[in-house]
Amino acid sequence: MPHAPDPIRRRCANALRMLAIDAVQAANSGHPGMPMGMADIAEALWRHHLKHDPADPQWPDRDRFVLSNGHGSMLLYALLHLSGYDLPMDELKRFRQLGSRTPGHPEVHMTPGVETTTGPLGQGLANAVGMALAEKLLAQEFNRPGHDIVDHRTWVFLGDGCLMEGISHEACSLAGTWGLNKLVAFYDDNGISIDGDVKGWFGDDTPARFEAYGWTVIRNVDGHDFAALDAAIAQARKSGRPVLVCCRTQIGHGSPNRAGTADVHGAPLGEAEIALVRQALDWDAPPFEVPAELRQAWDAVERGGAQRRQWQQRFDAYARAFPELAAEFLRRRAGGTLREDTAAALARAVLDAERRAAKVATRKASQEFLDAVAPAMPELLGGSADLTGSNLTDWKGSRPLTGQGSGNHVHYGVREFGMAAVMNGVALHGGYKPFGGTFLTFSDYSRNALRMSALMRLPVVHVFTHDSIGLGEDGPTHQPVEHAHSLRLIPDLDVWRPADATETAVAWQQALQRGDGPSCLLLSRQALPHADGGQERADLIARGAYVLRGARDERVVLIATGSELQLALAAAQRLADEGIAARVVSAPCLEVFERQDEAYRRSVIPRHLPRLAIEAGRSGLWWKYVGEDGDVVALERFGESAPAPALLEHFGFTPQAVAERARRLLA
Amino acid sequence: MPHAPDPIRRRCANALRMLAIDAVQAANSGHPGMPMGMADIAEALWRHHLKHDPADPQWPDRDRFVLSNGHGSMLLYALLHLSGYDLPMDELKRFRQLGSRTPGHPEVHMTPGVETTTGPLGQGLANAVGMALAEKLLAQEFNRPGHDIVDHRTWVFLGDGCLMEGISHEACSLAGTWGLNKLVAFYDDNGISIDGDVKGWFGDDTPARFEAYGWTVIRNVDGHDFAALDAAIAQARKSGRPVLVCCRTQIGHGSPNRAGTADVHGAPLGEAEIALVRQALDWDAPPFEVPAELRQAWDAVERGGAQRRQWQQRFDAYARAFPELAAEFLRRRAGGTLREDTAAALARAVLDAERRAAKVATRKASQEFLDAVAPAMPELLGGSADLTGSNLTDWKGSRPLTGQGSGNHVHYGVREFGMAAVMNGVALHGGYKPFGGTFLTFSDYSRNALRMSALMRLPVVHVFTHDSIGLGEDGPTHQPVEHAHSLRLIPDLDVWRPADATETAVAWQQALQRGDGPSCLLLSRQALPHADGGQERADLIARGAYVLRGARDERVVLIATGSELQLALAAAQRLADEGIAARVVSAPCLEVFERQDEAYRRSVIPRHLPRLAIEAGRSGLWWKYVGEDGDVVALERFGESAPAPALLEHFGFTPQAVAERARRLLA
Repeated sequence: MPHAPDPIRRRCANALRMLAIDAVQAANSGHPGMPMGMADIAEALWRHHLKHDPADPQWPDRDRFVLSNGHGSMLLYALLHLSGYDLPMDELKRFRQLGSRTPGHPEVHMTPGVETTTGPLGQGLANAVGMALAEKLLAQEFNRPGHDIVDHRTWVFLGDGCLMEGISHEACSLAGTWGLNKLVAFYDDNGISIDGDVKGWFGDDTPARFEAYGWTVIRNVDGHDFAALDAAIAQARKSGRPVLVCCRTQIGHGSPNRAGTADVHGAPLGEAEIALVRQALDWDAPPFEVPAELRQAWDAVERGGAQRRQWQQRFDAYARAFPELAAEFLRRRAGGTLREDTAAALARAVLDAERRAAKVATRKASQEFLDAVAPAMPELLGGSADLTGSNLTDWKGSRPLTGQGSGNHVHYGVREFGMAAVMNGVALHGGYKPFGGTFLTFSDYSRNALRMSALMRLPVVHVFTHDSIGLGEDGPTHQPVEHAHSLRLIPDLDVWRPADATETAVAWQQALQRGDGPSCLLLSRQALPHADGGQERADLIARGAYVLRGARDERVVLIATGSELQLALAAAQRLADEGIAARVVSAPCLEVFERQDEAYRRSVIPRHLPRLAIEAGRSGLWWKYVGEDGDVVALERFGESAPAPALLEHFGFTPQAVAERARRLLA
Repeated sequence: MPHAPDPIRRRCANALRMLAIDAVQAANSGHPGMPMGMADIAEALWRHHLKHDPADPQWPDRDRFVLSNGHGSMLLYALLHLSGYDLPMDELKRFRQLGSRTPGHPEVHMTPGVETTTGPLGQGLANAVGMALAEKLLAQEFNRPGHDIVDHRTWVFLGDGCLMEGISHEACSLAGTWGLNKLVAFYDDNGISIDGDVKGWFGDDTPARFEAYGWTVIRNVDGHDFAALDAAIAQARKSGRPVLVCCRTQIGHGSPNRAGTADVHGAPLGEAEIALVRQALDWDAPPFEVPAELRQAWDAVERGGAQRRQWQQRFDAYARAFPELAAEFLRRRAGGTLREDTAAALARAVLDAERRAAKVATRKASQEFLDAVAPAMPELLGGSADLTGSNLTDWKGSRPLTGQGSGNHVHYGVREFGMAAVMNGVALHGGYKPFGGTFLTFSDYSRNALRMSALMRLPVVHVFTHDSIGLGEDGPTHQPVEHAHSLRLIPDLDVWRPADATETAVAWQQALQRGDGPSCLLLSRQALPHADGGQERADLIARGAYVLRGARDERVVLIATGSELQLALAAAQRLADEGIAARVVSAPCLEVFERQDEAYRRSVIPRHLPRLAIEAGRSGLWWKYVGEDGDVVALERFGESAPAPALLEHFGFTPQAVAERARRLLA
């Protein structure tokens, strides 16, 4: 080990190394290499710069710390434990065990001090960009001269894997364009990834790449030299742009035989090598024990508490000077509630949509809803991945985000995955209610970030327009056929496919009121007629599925979503003309419907009648609702390029064809 | 318009512009801006450099041309038509109409001369990287001194959108690392994307970024100046590295009122503006008519035929000198057949797996299969997204790809999407049978490239290991629960989830023999016991689902895949002990099973018996097979971090729990 100027610092870092080693060994599973390699950087940041109060992990003006290379989770757990968070040693001993608060990868809401769930590489970095964006916007919105109540940084640890992933390009390009100067990323440049020496597959000049994004790059920092790290962090704090600190490190630093090799990345060191590490680090304490002087050196409760109290005093002064702003600021924290008048505004927008009864594309109905409710929801932060005029995610009075950090509609550029992961970061940070749009097909690009929003139960809204072959000429690359179902398969994600303006408004209303998870809105390019359903329809829509048209002596049930509801209605009319009474069920959100009690569900979709589902996509999950004696008017293949009416006819989405399929069920 | 040194060239380019304008106008849909902006670049490349023979679009040594900004499809159709491909004017008149060969975005196998299907931005560029990789590998493998039978380039057109997408980072980093010097990309730097002037959301210094990837960048080329374009292409041809030609262009060039604005990107110009364009371009010919002198100037049949014949002579000489190599080369073209001994080797590997009857992880069984068959399949090109030792995609004697362009196992780095799109490019090019591995969860990252492989019906194989909560401690970010079904939803994609080594071998056999579409192999991390099924099991496995254990007086059917088959067998045993006869069906591939005749399907999964499906993931599509009176032992939520046995117990994947669920069906 290089000689340290301040031996306590090296020993503090070694405490992190040993806890990581011990926990991975106890679990017989995990990743010791990264914690050992980044321990010195972690010491430099956490003991000397990070603004946080272990006693109040939700303090709004805390710095955010993101471990984008989440497999090194033990580094973070060791940091949290030693800093004084509510994460006792017993939890470290139960690393990676069922029910522990120390899962294999960090999970937000599971462990105090963990700011986001990381694991799928590159996304933590993108979340951090979202957090830094939220900070910048909040500062712009709430700070007043002499009152900087929003003034914190976002710090990221990341490795080669994050930098190889495409999302790092999307997120870091945006961070540069937005000038997020309070974002500082530490690159663990250890030259090793799982397959070995990265030279064979990662030849980028990463510093030059980040300079091309408009970042400040601090090159060639020795990641095991505290003086160099201190100097780099001091420089980073002064930058007017996002900062990449390139730290040369040795993976598994401290392991005599494994350091610098891929072997140390993802497997326990084993007892023999651990004994050698103890020798090399001059570490006498037994496993999971930390000498008192190091515990004391790490303890951040006092310093953090003082920092927080100082902020509280400043905030109190702010609250005296700007009481309304201060109240609004507190409301807007992560997990905050809606403004008192918001629920009324949402309900009014639903009623207005129903009253207008217009034939309108649901993407347009979505914009009309936003026009109506945005004045009552200053927390809205819209956006689109370069399809604003198609997704219609902007609204009357929305202001495009500028480099100066104001605005409430974000032009994310052609970056679907980056957009979704940045939105997750904004939601995690708090202050804004993010939503963003792209075409439904391109939900594929952002899919894992949607999954992460569901896993983290973040209240974000994904607006996916052009939701079927009904988009027409752009052809099969742009026509979703499997996407509605594939989104429905993600747990805890509510997928709405509204059939008209009223259903669209209710979908938005539910999505915005949902505090504990994400929602998708699947919206049509083409105009859809209003579905008459009477005054109480809004309440029924909010149950996920409902009987839109009942009849006496029903003989068949037609179940449809979105643009196909009109087909079901027209087919039912045809059947009625022949004396066959058909029920029509509109099912805009199967997830919400599944949360209803069984009696309601059976009352809407009865088992004793033949059932036909109609949706312009794969039959997929519909068999659960129609049973094996039922049928699905579906599209089991990719689409074609042609005008929408020609396609719908070609693929059998006509009232005649639907009525015929229903008739066959009765034969 | 700037004055052209050679007026015929400008007029040739204008012919492209006018055809694009007329076709978009006739369709009342499409994208005129890009063709108008890139027409001069297209003239420079296609009339003076592109090596191709319109009479033989499959000529193996042709240059590949990829329109990554596929929305500008009319540019490509105009080029193909004028060059002499079998794409008559009538097809251009039917642009974007049902059944035409001129769909909204270019589709391979639909239109002669179209090399790949593009539309989802960034992927064409990544396909091109795959094509250039295949060319380099083929040249290395087949060329002999004095016999350069593989010597062609890959040319790409791309726009701002492609460059913003994350996949451009993954693919171009690889191209730089691999030194693909025959790859030349033309960047349509028009400063406009759909949302307007890109400055607000795309601040990258793109030339510096590509230099950081190790590319040669030719900056500041006037994309409307033929002399500048000629000089740039001449320089590009000499580069020892991949080349980005940065062309400053004006979107919609030639449109007096719309040029340089986002309005011209994706909407017809309208009759009034078209009249002004005609005036500005001094273009007298009626719509869809091209003056004879320009037709003649564009016609590439003679020049291309001469090039191809010249190559044929060289190939004939090669075939005389190296007859075996020449025969192998021809066999290896895209759509080529397997070697005569390959089928036998595949079958033998299946039998060997069955004979060994080993308890082994299916990812390990997969590697054993590769060990056995690789000697008979020199076309195999394996790889992994930095998980080689976990995916086990390498084999005895596989050689890692090096920058020198040899090797048959590719370290793609942590780039799942790039890997999948590069594999698509390799398959499109021909010469190699690509497969690549990552964890199943990260199929999310590559999802749209999987979709594209299915849409293009490319014979690629995706190896997805760690296929359930059975992976254990890495936790919910790494545990797929929705992925098996979400892959099954992609049309034309065969999804195999084998239960033991024999099923794994058959899955590989079928995937490698499949010529008309992609396959996924979902493989376990954990060891799985051999399922005894007798000699004929291999044939049954190949039918997608089969009765593994029958019984007299069966009262219930248990259907399982992968690691859950052993649970079904153990549960059946428990039930048998209680006197309840249960059938056990193994269903490794539902897509293949659906292609069997109905009689077979009914014979395997009979409707008259209660049915229980068991799969450690969402119930999703299983309701189609068990009916609403059936049940599914499933995991409807995200997983947890814990050792696999604890998780399986916790989530009810035990023989006891399965038997109990079966019993309830009989109540």
